[in-house]
Amino acid sequence: MTKDINARHTEKMRKIKAARDKMMQTKTDEKGLIIVHTGAGKGKSSSGFGMIMRCIAHGMPCAVVQFIKGNWVTGERKFLTERFADECRFFVSGEGFTWETQDRERDIAAAQNGWKIAKEQILDPEIQFVLLDEINIALRYDYLDIDEVVDFLLHQKPAMTHVCLTGRNAKPELIEAADLVTEMNLVKHPFRDGIKAQNGVEM
Amino acid sequence: MTKDINARHTEKMRKIKAARDKMMQTKTDEKGLIIVHTGAGKGKSSSGFGMIMRCIAHGMPCAVVQFIKGNWVTGERKFLTERFADECRFFVSGEGFTWETQDRERDIAAAQNGWKIAKEQILDPEIQFVLLDEINIALRYDYLDIDEVVDFLLHQKPAMTHVCLTGRNAKPELIEAADLVTEMNLVKHPFRDGIKAQNGVEM
Repeated sequence: MTKDINARHTEKMRKIKAARDKMMQTKTDEKGLIIVHTGAGKGKSSSGFGMIMRCIAHGMPCAVVQFIKGNWVTGERKFLTERFADECRFFVSGEGFTWETQDRERDIAAAQNGWKIAKEQILDPEIQFVLLDEINIALRYDYLDIDEVVDFLLHQKPAMTHVCLTGRNAKPELIEAADLVTEMNLVKHPFRDGIKAQNGVEM
Repeated sequence: MTKDINARHTEKMRKIKAARDKMMQTKTDEKGLIIVHTGAGKGKSSSGFGMIMRCIAHGMPCAVVQFIKGNWVTGERKFLTERFADECRFFVSGEGFTWETQDRERDIAAAQNGWKIAKEQILDPEIQFVLLDEINIALRYDYLDIDEVVDFLLHQKPAMTHVCLTGRNAKPELIEAADLVTEMNLVKHPFRDGIKAQNGVEM
């Protein structure tokens, strides 16, 4: 039984790798990357946000789809929606999508809606960079199907479009499919000393 | 001999910890943090840049001191200097400070000049957040004295000012002194597949 699961897992990973290798054969010096920021440390979203700023600086139209609210509510969201609405599209997949609600049906609907928007943005030929912020949380809880997401990224994403997916506990299938994976690890955190989240640093 | 070195190291770390603990006793719910982004993965600078954007969004005056050129030359630097010169001060510690030059004297002078500017910005009561980008490289090669830097951060930094120090191979003394440390680890990188650095992602 476990052996079967392991064998299926190996075969699945082999297929993902083969699809990725096939795609890589067509590579030129530049290509649209599948980028993953994962790990329990800080910097997953803010580094993705930094990439969005680089895109704006280079005149590359871009989009953010935010899968859970919280992280982006204050600083970045305000910054992008108030100052860079023309350069960067900003979407939130359902205001109610938080872990406090414990309303699984609503959370699934919000995640699915976010993924629908994400696909539209990725397929839009005008858009060159799409940040799917905290999508790994939705994948982890199976609110989105990992196979569908990986299949779309490998087979339907336009060749030159970059997609960055953030959130802890990235699924192995996504890491296998990705071009660039960074794990942010927590070495030390001030919360343990009773310091609360602060503007500029966390928000 | 080795035992002596180890004993000195332990004693040094104990002193840094004691100084940090003493500082923490005065903490309120908010305090200026010493933040370190290290590790061989991506996101150290771009996450620092994301924090700068958060500061701008919140109306917190901030400054960047860039210790090596390269990382920030294109996207972020252009973005900040052209669009946010009023909100964020931007300094480069010597254009010639690169590893290609192999001009050690010039590199040391550039690093020392950068640290002088960094101290001025940190001490400036108007500035609430200072990003010392790639300073860990200068510290690693002893172009700056780690003891002096740590001592300044622990004893002279204004209580509410945040300082973020980036770069791989952060020194243990700095990690000991810091409040918030994140290690960015490389899991997978497209350069190994012959893909070059691209706008929006790396630049």
